[in-house]
Amino acid sequence: MAKIISGGNLPNIPWQDKPKDSWLPIWRYDANPVIGRNPFPGMARIFNSAVIPWEGKFKGVFRSEDPTGNPFLYLGDSEDGIHWEFQREKIHMHDPDGTPHDPYYAYDPRCVKVDDTYYIMWCGDFDGASIGVASTKDFKDFTRLENPFLPFNRNAVLFPKKIDGKFAMLSRPSDSGHTPFGDILLSYSPDMKYWGEHRLVMQKGGGAWWEGLKIGAGPAPIETDEGWLLFFHGVCQTCNGYVYSFSAAILDHDKPSIVKYRCKNYMLTPELPYETTGFVDNVCFPVAALTDQATGRIAIYYGCADTVVGLCFTTVDEAVKYVKEHNELNGLDKDEGRF
Amino acid sequence: MAKIISGGNLPNIPWQDKPKDSWLPIWRYDANPVIGRNPFPGMARIFNSAVIPWEGKFKGVFRSEDPTGNPFLYLGDSEDGIHWEFQREKIHMHDPDGTPHDPYYAYDPRCVKVDDTYYIMWCGDFDGASIGVASTKDFKDFTRLENPFLPFNRNAVLFPKKIDGKFAMLSRPSDSGHTPFGDILLSYSPDMKYWGEHRLVMQKGGGAWWEGLKIGAGPAPIETDEGWLLFFHGVCQTCNGYVYSFSAAILDHDKPSIVKYRCKNYMLTPELPYETTGFVDNVCFPVAALTDQATGRIAIYYGCADTVVGLCFTTVDEAVKYVKEHNELNGLDKDEGRF
Amino acid sequence: MAKIISGGNLPNIPWQDKPKDSWLPIWRYDANPVIGRNPFPGMARIFNSAVIPWEGKFKGVFRSEDPTGNPFLYLGDSEDGIHWEFQREKIHMHDPDGTPHDPYYAYDPRCVKVDDTYYIMWCGDFDGASIGVASTKDFKDFTRLENPFLPFNRNAVLFPKKIDGKFAMLSRPSDSGHTPFGDILLSYSPDMKYWGEHRLVMQKGGGAWWEGLKIGAGPAPIETDEGWLLFFHGVCQTCNGYVYSFSAAILDHDKPSIVKYRCKNYMLTPELPYETTGFVDNVCFPVAALTDQATGRIAIYYGCADTVVGLCFTTVDEAVKYVKEHNELNGLDKDEGRF
Amino acid sequence: MAKIISGGNLPNIPWQDKPKDSWLPIWRYDANPVIGRNPFPGMARIFNSAVIPWEGKFKGVFRSEDPTGNPFLYLGDSEDGIHWEFQREKIHMHDPDGTPHDPYYAYDPRCVKVDDTYYIMWCGDFDGASIGVASTKDFKDFTRLENPFLPFNRNAVLFPKKIDGKFAMLSRPSDSGHTPFGDILLSYSPDMKYWGEHRLVMQKGGGAWWEGLKIGAGPAPIETDEGWLLFFHGVCQTCNGYVYSFSAAILDHDKPSIVKYRCKNYMLTPELPYETTGFVDNVCFPVAALTDQATGRIAIYYGCADTVVGLCFTTVDEAVKYVKEHNELNGLDKDEGRF
Amino acid sequence: MAKIISGGNLPNIPWQDKPKDSWLPIWRYDANPVIGRNPFPGMARIFNSAVIPWEGKFKGVFRSEDPTGNPFLYLGDSEDGIHWEFQREKIHMHDPDGTPHDPYYAYDPRCVKVDDTYYIMWCGDFDGASIGVASTKDFKDFTRLENPFLPFNRNAVLFPKKIDGKFAMLSRPSDSGHTPFGDILLSYSPDMKYWGEHRLVMQKGGGAWWEGLKIGAGPAPIETDEGWLLFFHGVCQTCNGYVYSFSAAILDHDKPSIVKYRCKNYMLTPELPYETTGFVDNVCFPVAALTDQATGRIAIYYGCADTVVGLCFTTVDEAVKYVKEHNELNGLDKDEGRF
Amino acid sequence: MAKIISGGNLPNIPWQDKPKDSWLPIWRYDANPVIGRNPFPGMARIFNSAVIPWEGKFKGVFRSEDPTGNPFLYLGDSEDGIHWEFQREKIHMHDPDGTPHDPYYAYDPRCVKVDDTYYIMWCGDFDGASIGVASTKDFKDFTRLENPFLPFNRNAVLFPKKIDGKFAMLSRPSDSGHTPFGDILLSYSPDMKYWGEHRLVMQKGGGAWWEGLKIGAGPAPIETDEGWLLFFHGVCQTCNGYVYSFSAAILDHDKPSIVKYRCKNYMLTPELPYETTGFVDNVCFPVAALTDQATGRIAIYYGCADTVVGLCFTTVDEAVKYVKEHNELNGLDKDEGRF
Repeated sequence: MAKIISGGNLPNIPWQDKPKDSWLPIWRYDANPVIGRNPFPGMARIFNSAVIPWEGKFKGVFRSEDPTGNPFLYLGDSEDGIHWEFQREKIHMHDPDGTPHDPYYAYDPRCVKVDDTYYIMWCGDFDGASIGVASTKDFKDFTRLENPFLPFNRNAVLFPKKIDGKFAMLSRPSDSGHTPFGDILLSYSPDMKYWGEHRLVMQKGGGAWWEGLKIGAGPAPIETDEGWLLFFHGVCQTCNGYVYSFSAAILDHDKPSIVKYRCKNYMLTPELPYETTGFVDNVCFPVAALTDQATGRIAIYYGCADTVVGLCFTTVDEAVKYVKEHNELNGLDKDEGRF
Repeated sequence: MAKIISGGNLPNIPWQDKPKDSWLPIWRYDANPVIGRNPFPGMARIFNSAVIPWEGKFKGVFRSEDPTGNPFLYLGDSEDGIHWEFQREKIHMHDPDGTPHDPYYAYDPRCVKVDDTYYIMWCGDFDGASIGVASTKDFKDFTRLENPFLPFNRNAVLFPKKIDGKFAMLSRPSDSGHTPFGDILLSYSPDMKYWGEHRLVMQKGGGAWWEGLKIGAGPAPIETDEGWLLFFHGVCQTCNGYVYSFSAAILDHDKPSIVKYRCKNYMLTPELPYETTGFVDNVCFPVAALTDQATGRIAIYYGCADTVVGLCFTTVDEAVKYVKEHNELNGLDKDEGRF
Repeated sequence: MAKIISGGNLPNIPWQDKPKDSWLPIWRYDANPVIGRNPFPGMARIFNSAVIPWEGKFKGVFRSEDPTGNPFLYLGDSEDGIHWEFQREKIHMHDPDGTPHDPYYAYDPRCVKVDDTYYIMWCGDFDGASIGVASTKDFKDFTRLENPFLPFNRNAVLFPKKIDGKFAMLSRPSDSGHTPFGDILLSYSPDMKYWGEHRLVMQKGGGAWWEGLKIGAGPAPIETDEGWLLFFHGVCQTCNGYVYSFSAAILDHDKPSIVKYRCKNYMLTPELPYETTGFVDNVCFPVAALTDQATGRIAIYYGCADTVVGLCFTTVDEAVKYVKEHNELNGLDKDEGRF
Repeated sequence: MAKIISGGNLPNIPWQDKPKDSWLPIWRYDANPVIGRNPFPGMARIFNSAVIPWEGKFKGVFRSEDPTGNPFLYLGDSEDGIHWEFQREKIHMHDPDGTPHDPYYAYDPRCVKVDDTYYIMWCGDFDGASIGVASTKDFKDFTRLENPFLPFNRNAVLFPKKIDGKFAMLSRPSDSGHTPFGDILLSYSPDMKYWGEHRLVMQKGGGAWWEGLKIGAGPAPIETDEGWLLFFHGVCQTCNGYVYSFSAAILDHDKPSIVKYRCKNYMLTPELPYETTGFVDNVCFPVAALTDQATGRIAIYYGCADTVVGLCFTTVDEAVKYVKEHNELNGLDKDEGRF
Repeated sequence: MAKIISGGNLPNIPWQDKPKDSWLPIWRYDANPVIGRNPFPGMARIFNSAVIPWEGKFKGVFRSEDPTGNPFLYLGDSEDGIHWEFQREKIHMHDPDGTPHDPYYAYDPRCVKVDDTYYIMWCGDFDGASIGVASTKDFKDFTRLENPFLPFNRNAVLFPKKIDGKFAMLSRPSDSGHTPFGDILLSYSPDMKYWGEHRLVMQKGGGAWWEGLKIGAGPAPIETDEGWLLFFHGVCQTCNGYVYSFSAAILDHDKPSIVKYRCKNYMLTPELPYETTGFVDNVCFPVAALTDQATGRIAIYYGCADTVVGLCFTTVDEAVKYVKEHNELNGLDKDEGRF
Repeated sequence: MAKIISGGNLPNIPWQDKPKDSWLPIWRYDANPVIGRNPFPGMARIFNSAVIPWEGKFKGVFRSEDPTGNPFLYLGDSEDGIHWEFQREKIHMHDPDGTPHDPYYAYDPRCVKVDDTYYIMWCGDFDGASIGVASTKDFKDFTRLENPFLPFNRNAVLFPKKIDGKFAMLSRPSDSGHTPFGDILLSYSPDMKYWGEHRLVMQKGGGAWWEGLKIGAGPAPIETDEGWLLFFHGVCQTCNGYVYSFSAAILDHDKPSIVKYRCKNYMLTPELPYETTGFVDNVCFPVAALTDQATGRIAIYYGCADTVVGLCFTTVDEAVKYVKEHNELNGLDKDEGRF
């Protein structure tokens, strides 16, 4: 029986038991979406957003689009991870020397705690879509760090622990538009400033049609006794556009560029109206996971149709077992991925 | 407090008061759509259509698509602007010399009264998508005028008054397909036959993502004491297609190619099922506005998802105030737009 | 009054009478979809599937996609053509010499009985999308036949009788992607092994916008006293993707590459939520028809939104009459189509 | 024997007799190019340029690109139409009120004398590629006129005489990029300010592959006793890009939107190194013609490979005869072209 | 030492010995091109053409484009295979019943003698680019046979002997435009009327960049004691278009869908001006080969730059040896190619 | 008078004086190309290659393509920098631990000496086009270093000195195909292993059409008393493909992400046959520069038409003066480029 081996207990993790008729390892919160359209006056859409435990409650870092359609990051607070109080002013940041330095735009944030610091990664503008990073210890003061990578890149997420003494970040190199390709790579840094030792982790289309166009990391990997449990989204292209589903893989604990198991089945795909219809139809896009070490419960926040926020559940044991039972390793020659 | 300064009173303008929870300056009719799918036997879809007051009641000039999918113009009558009697035969036209001259196809009509004549503009075929024009005084006899512009063009609409003694028409030059670009320009004519003095009015993407792909004029501009109130649609491109929203700008009264204010926020975006889902998902496309000088009320007819007709409301004061509060003038150098 | 002249009686054909307010010749089953999402544990979507009478009941050959998204063929049984028992293992096939030979993938199957044999055609992989064929007499043992055509091809369907002593198959030559073009052609074979005498039957856009991008044969043609009644799908391209509708034509009885009548109107177009929204929005895709010679009833199975299976009804007389009343022959010069 | 009936005599027209082995009606100057690469220090390329008789000598209005690659108009003088003195400063223009008003860029100029005024048309920037116009009487003072058309447009050229009392201008509506389509249209104006009565003249691909992608007017039409002799370029698309050739048509004298004859053969196509190789390979692009009424001689200046200027010859009789012998009128239904 | 084992002796085969400095197995005729631009009055370009021995001399079947740019087939005669007399009228054909039946257009002909009949294959129009076939015994009377395949297809060529009692034809399925993909397939027919047993022979990009976009058969395969020697062209795509080179493979004698050896190196690539520059730059396109059984000499006719005809030489031994030394079999799983 | 301030003297630098009629600051070697097609048996094309002084002579690191068309790196030696002896085996590399590690392919190498080590950078395959790096001290033993950047990237080149104690590398982020966009960025590394402090240096289209599509660094920047002299290529897109020219900019000495001057004119553009015609027409692509501190002479090696190697000359004073005289700084807001 697979176990989560770090991250601690989270007794107030949002939770519902698995419905009887559910045959996939992930099931939806039955009152989805947890954040709907027009969540507060002046805000059009919140989706693809990060949630993280904070002092017994929860902090949210939200991709929020006002009626200009431009995305920025906003903070929110919640006692139960479901009902939210939103700040009405976007997050402001500054450089290490104190110079104000807000992103020109920012979307799809991840928020990961490493040691005693919270790191927020987002996709912003650095001569095109690229990864921005800021750190905070109090969710009040946000310091910009150097952009880790050259453009073009999206979907970056740190591991919640250093690997072999180094920060480790997954990302999905891309291009300057609606990137019609994409794989997941891993990079290391001794100091969150200089990055290298880039490794290929997973290529799109590792055996399945649902992720044949591109893939990208979702929430920060979850440390289990089987390795790092990584939820990732995959995209396929129909004649009417992209469909975003998601599933999981298990990465080697010590060398996480090695994929131990990779699920050939999606675990969640757009089916309900709030997933199939919205600003961008047919999107289920996971960006944050809460975990409870005691019970193995996992609550995943996922953006729905680029319009609202949904919540879904699994347990580490359900997820790991399903990945292993439906394993189909990418045909990738590991030497090719070496660097 | 902004005022409408022409067009007269329209006591039977369709109307509902603003809902309490509405924080945008435009609100929907709560029984939308006012014209649904299959509005009468033999007709598949009516949308993107013009409505105009007529002898105390209302005339409609409808974009109507039968099961061939080919669009033509049909007339309709209504007492309240909401319930309609449709003519079952498309509008027939003739040249000034009486020769029958029906459009090969016709869509997205506007209908504007200038002096004592009603002018109908539509997008038809003239070696590709181009503007057609006809005039009528009785909605029975329709005379084709010369096409005002070379191909390719869409979304033309006359000002309801001559400007400096000349007819003035907005339009959106385009190309021969699903045009992935587009700005609003203004042209003048002494006689509705020869056109010139073309001016650039507004470029796409004037500060906001929701209109980053293309823009186009909606209903005829409304004369207010602040200038001409122009509702316009804007389109952005997602990985799953175009999204059509709309907003408003205020043009200079005497030189309407000068933009005084331009709202960076959309005022209406596809959110309800009849807007997000249909023949073309995610379309809110305004083409006609009724106004009541006495109350400042404005009722806007907009096509929904290229499938049905919706109705929404604002007042001149709400709209003007919102535009000014959320003003972000296009970065356009006016000299560049000179001609 | 048009009559079906072969195929026999089918007293248990699924059936509902035409609703009062229906003005098109085809009407939907009021409890659609007959097969919904996640039809059984482990299966994500069934759609675009074939149904055929079998020993007083019905056999189904289903396009079934599990959570990999890869399509395969599965069998099912039904007493009423509406409620189905599905086999949990995909259809396995072998070559004439007994060597196992499963398709790499298979979608959009048709199933047609000619003489005493059932032929299943599908689109599979033969250096790209191409037609695969297998035969069976008992729905237990399935023998692969030679692929009839070179790549690339889709939407092949046999005539249920030999024409002039030869097998006759309709198909839609295409390309290696989301083919943005396509017409219906006819080919003959003396032996189901070698094919020739290819003829052009119908080109896309024969007068109507709804089928302006591409067309393809649907169920096997139905033999009537007016000729072969062929239901076919047509696709148009909007700025937000493809829309699949369908209609019918009547082919000459003895030389079915000659089109006697072709309906310019669609008979069914996506309107209901299960047709407008799903894995691929806006798809009504007919693949199988049951007929009852005694009553002239026709029940058509059609895929909805590449997600579920719908059922709809007409009678041979309604369909033939509507085709003839809305006839608009393709402008095709028959000599051009000769070969 | 066809005759030129206006334009006067030009005894010093550049000229060479037809070579013996020439079987097409146009033959090249044997010392081409007349203006080569790097024609003077600081100038990279001159091509696609206009030449017109001036006080017994010749004026040139050149598309000139310096090493920025940006095109502007420059003047030049020649005694023989072959050897040129170039002005080193680009042409400066002003509005009628004297305000300086240079084009942002300008290319492919035509220069046509109507009555006592010289009109220069070019393709410049007006929210995209569009037609600019200026007039001069002395080639020293250049007054900008209103842009005749909305964007997007290229290849405009005036008739050298008013038609029915009105200015008449041919043009080729296009789009914002390397337009992959295009036909020739005609517009009228009473005053060079307002334009209308737009008519379709010729569509691309009127029977021949060499002009299957797009066509455009070349030099100003030449008045002959058979009608207006119009040289036009045509473009076809190979897997390695566009190929520009040119030929001629004869337009009705009084209603020049009516095509009397149209040559299905090209008259000149890229064959020599200076035509097949350069900044843009495979371009022969005619923009100006000198004519001598006395002899019927015609000297055509054409851009070669977007790099140099070539000169070629024909006579009105050779050209008209060849057009009539190889006539293949566009399948265009004249009613469709009516407007 | 490899030998040609059929086809007979051809003492007057065009020939030049291999130059000293040639390190590739194919060398050019030093007076190339053998047919230049404008080969006779009224004809613009001859290229991609077939040559075959005939009564001690040679017959040519030429792709000939007059100044319309439309391709048709023309005959020619030569005593030495280098100097040609061209017929001035295109080849006319008729159906078996005598009805005249000329191709709408025809290009890239191959001409192959099987038993006592000459078969000409070309790419023509059958609802798009497709293979046409005619037979002749005297090069005077040409009978159309049924089109062997559905559209879309190009580059078909018969084997010069029946394989296992059946006609065998290679072809390259394609699409309706400048096909950006393509492999070589093989089909069989008992009677030149019905075709089947389609097999995949070679996929593009079998190890080398020069043929990474598409490949296609060239001349009819040459029977050698090592198997069938097949010259084939390969295309790669640069940022400035396609580059056509060619090389060879050796197919199994009895089952020619099996590739025994495939050369990873091109044998000829565009280098000389008549190959790198023309109507389509950078094309070397082989379509016919003459062979002399006595000496093993092979003379290959290849189209150059879609403009002229070139000639080059090799011997069966040079070619076979080079293929074997530079063999790199396509990674193709033969089972995948089974059918 | 500008001076080179590092790099030392190079008395045997290849050199020719400036021709009289040359008005651009760069002039060609009059015996170009220095390396032609088929430079030695078995090798098809050498171009886009690096040259560096070595023990009084010269070492070359060549992009060499054999008849497979696949690019690899080869070494060569020369006494004069013009005549070369090529090694017949490609460069082999190994990881720091000695494991052999050859690139899958490698093109467009730069070779830069920093301190006592030679670093070779190329574009190779790392899940797409990316930068590879190896070091050597003797041109015999080549050690792979970590790939500095995530895919996709091309045109990386080190500064020949550390900046502020760190390695500094220019590169051009791109995508997975024929990248139709691209700017130059700068990255720093303390150790050649981890990279960061990425800065935007120059964007395409900084005022001129010739570099409107994309730009990329050429040879290693040259240290002058005015700052770093950077030659860079620029690409524009015509209807017939890309045209590669080059020019220069001057970067701030201490903060080289700051552009002091940028030349709006190209300095060399394809004009001569070996530049306009070849495997890829119209390419002048600079990759290496030799400099002589004593005289200020600069010899630039540039790839021509992706086929041969050309040589051209300038002096530091000519180049710097021309850049400053034709300066047009990119409109780039430096804050936007901050990171």
